[in-house]
Amino acid sequence: LTNNGKETERLSGEKVNIKYILDLRDFPNSPFGDKVVHDYSIIVNDPEVDIVIEAMGGSHPAYEYTVAALKAKKSVITSNKEVVANFGDEFLALARENGVAYRFEAAVGGGIPVISPLISCVCQNKINEICGILNGTTNFILTEMLTKGKSFDDALADAQSKGYAEANPAADVEGTDAARKIVILAAIVTGKLLPVSKIHVEGITKIRNADVNFATGRGSAIKLLGRAVNGDELTLLVSPFVVPKESPIKNVMGVFNAVSVSAEPLGDVMFYGQGAGAGATASAVVGDLMQIITTGNNYPMPVFKKVDSVSDFGEFESSHYLAFSKMSDSLSENLPVGSEITVNGSEIAVITPKIKERELDAIIDALEEKPLSNIRFYEI
Amino acid sequence: LTNNGKETERLSGEKVNIKYILDLRDFPNSPFGDKVVHDYSIIVNDPEVDIVIEAMGGSHPAYEYTVAALKAKKSVITSNKEVVANFGDEFLALARENGVAYRFEAAVGGGIPVISPLISCVCQNKINEICGILNGTTNFILTEMLTKGKSFDDALADAQSKGYAEANPAADVEGTDAARKIVILAAIVTGKLLPVSKIHVEGITKIRNADVNFATGRGSAIKLLGRAVNGDELTLLVSPFVVPKESPIKNVMGVFNAVSVSAEPLGDVMFYGQGAGAGATASAVVGDLMQIITTGNNYPMPVFKKVDSVSDFGEFESSHYLAFSKMSDSLSENLPVGSEITVNGSEIAVITPKIKERELDAIIDALEEKPLSNIRFYEI
Repeated sequence: LTNNGKETERLSGEKVNIKYILDLRDFPNSPFGDKVVHDYSIIVNDPEVDIVIEAMGGSHPAYEYTVAALKAKKSVITSNKEVVANFGDEFLALARENGVAYRFEAAVGGGIPVISPLISCVCQNKINEICGILNGTTNFILTEMLTKGKSFDDALADAQSKGYAEANPAADVEGTDAARKIVILAAIVTGKLLPVSKIHVEGITKIRNADVNFATGRGSAIKLLGRAVNGDELTLLVSPFVVPKESPIKNVMGVFNAVSVSAEPLGDVMFYGQGAGAGATASAVVGDLMQIITTGNNYPMPVFKKVDSVSDFGEFESSHYLAFSKMSDSLSENLPVGSEITVNGSEIAVITPKIKERELDAIIDALEEKPLSNIRFYEI
Repeated sequence: LTNNGKETERLSGEKVNIKYILDLRDFPNSPFGDKVVHDYSIIVNDPEVDIVIEAMGGSHPAYEYTVAALKAKKSVITSNKEVVANFGDEFLALARENGVAYRFEAAVGGGIPVISPLISCVCQNKINEICGILNGTTNFILTEMLTKGKSFDDALADAQSKGYAEANPAADVEGTDAARKIVILAAIVTGKLLPVSKIHVEGITKIRNADVNFATGRGSAIKLLGRAVNGDELTLLVSPFVVPKESPIKNVMGVFNAVSVSAEPLGDVMFYGQGAGAGATASAVVGDLMQIITTGNNYPMPVFKKVDSVSDFGEFESSHYLAFSKMSDSLSENLPVGSEITVNGSEIAVITPKIKERELDAIIDALEEKPLSNIRFYEI
């Protein structure tokens, strides 16, 4: 709002004034230091405050603060994907009841316009699938493994030294961050807010260099995808996938994010850009702010309805890559009909036909030697 | 509206009824045949009609029909890039005066959400550049030349037989279509509507297989780009470029379109998808319709101001690829300092340093043998 004052005033028709900044700390040397307060009730009880931006992260007290602001008829903007994934349905309903807005463009894809175009430009379609590279840290790690042959551990250490991964990288590398984002995207297009804790989530900690080499040898790449597959049932999952060279998502490298949508009659569209960082987040948050100011809360707002159960993941079908240390009788007897067997360095790589999760699990249970890797194929 | 009735009713909260279809022809066997009228005054004088969708193309009578509808306080949605590029400023002002909306998402990038996210999610940034593959026909031709070694003529004939190019392909292959689109995109982010006839426009008719091979040998590709470069001055151009392998635009193949935006503090984002076709256009037009219905004309609408003159293209700087049949004294004496000379098959390929257009033109004038090709580099 300060650096781009010309642009934001042109859009909003007036200067936007930041009245308060809530923080535990003080910032005596900042030009905004005099705006810092430590008591949220000062903000929520001030009738001059129209809009509250919540960028604190985590579920609590973000939840309580958001509820209090909306009940006080203040619009709320957030960059906090956790609180949206957990309580977005309540916030949107409260905003509607109180005639204000609740917006969260920065929660998915950083500065990439994703949520707003999905709401305004895509939801008139039948949505078949949303598929995204939703976490820049894991995509950076996989890119380093792919382009420089690094091990997962070395690539993670590199991501940490560059500030892309936190000291405790679990939420990124185990897929939780991507899971929250795909839950939000699915809710935007279907109205159904699924529980993050109940969808299938697999991270990238088990990806080996041999797996990366298998993908590279086919012109493919391994990517951590968040997918919302909207068929007879709505299935959400986060998992590494072997992504074929024909998919534009295959070429998304480093810390970049991409969200791809397959819809009728639209066809396939993709949104691409930097998924994190202070500048990207600021752009998304201020974009939401401009929308609220210019439309007087009339910008279209989705309805989320919490759903308690998810589809049976055992019924999910895909083709799989399985890696084994050697060929064996047990393997040749048990593999599903139509499996393709190739040599990958010193390993045996198996590509199964499309098969249900529960069927493949039963086959793997029956094997004497368990696979070294088991990664799904993404088919476009 | 018929096929996706469930989706559109969920968004708009009501069934949208098409009252009239204006056409010169009759459609006695169509289920919508009874809606066909031949006299526009029936539509514009009917107070029940709130919204008019103009999908006729061309400047006239689209201009007159649009003005009449807006003056009658009916919102207008169009897929007609020509009329937006020529008269968008007038239409937006008229819409504002009459309290209605004028929207044109389908005019650029087909069904890809581009215009709406630029308005709602990007314009709070300082925009440094918009760069796009804005014409699917020319991108198909260049892709065929790249991947199958076809000549321009053969690739064009193929595009025509597939229905991607019209019998008279001039507007596509000479860059006019892309020029209209970059004029519209530049107006969205700067407010300045530049005259299409005065910007620098070069098509792809002179691209030779030797040029494509030069690019391929560097891991690059030749793409027809529309660019709006927003520096001290705003410069618009449409021209083939050698696009480096690091650019995500390099991988956009076939009839796909992509629009890339470089902005502060956002960084780089890209919108990608099918840029044409009945389904994609329908998606964009109906998306605009949903926005108008759900926001009661409150969806943010840009202001366009017509600008009569454009920046001096002679001052535009880029690095160039020049092809010559042989090395010569005249060439080695005249080439700008820092030029890189390589062998490309039986030709000499020169890569100049960054140089102003007028300086390079003077050098080429002084050469005894004129270059066989002269293509700019796109630097990211």
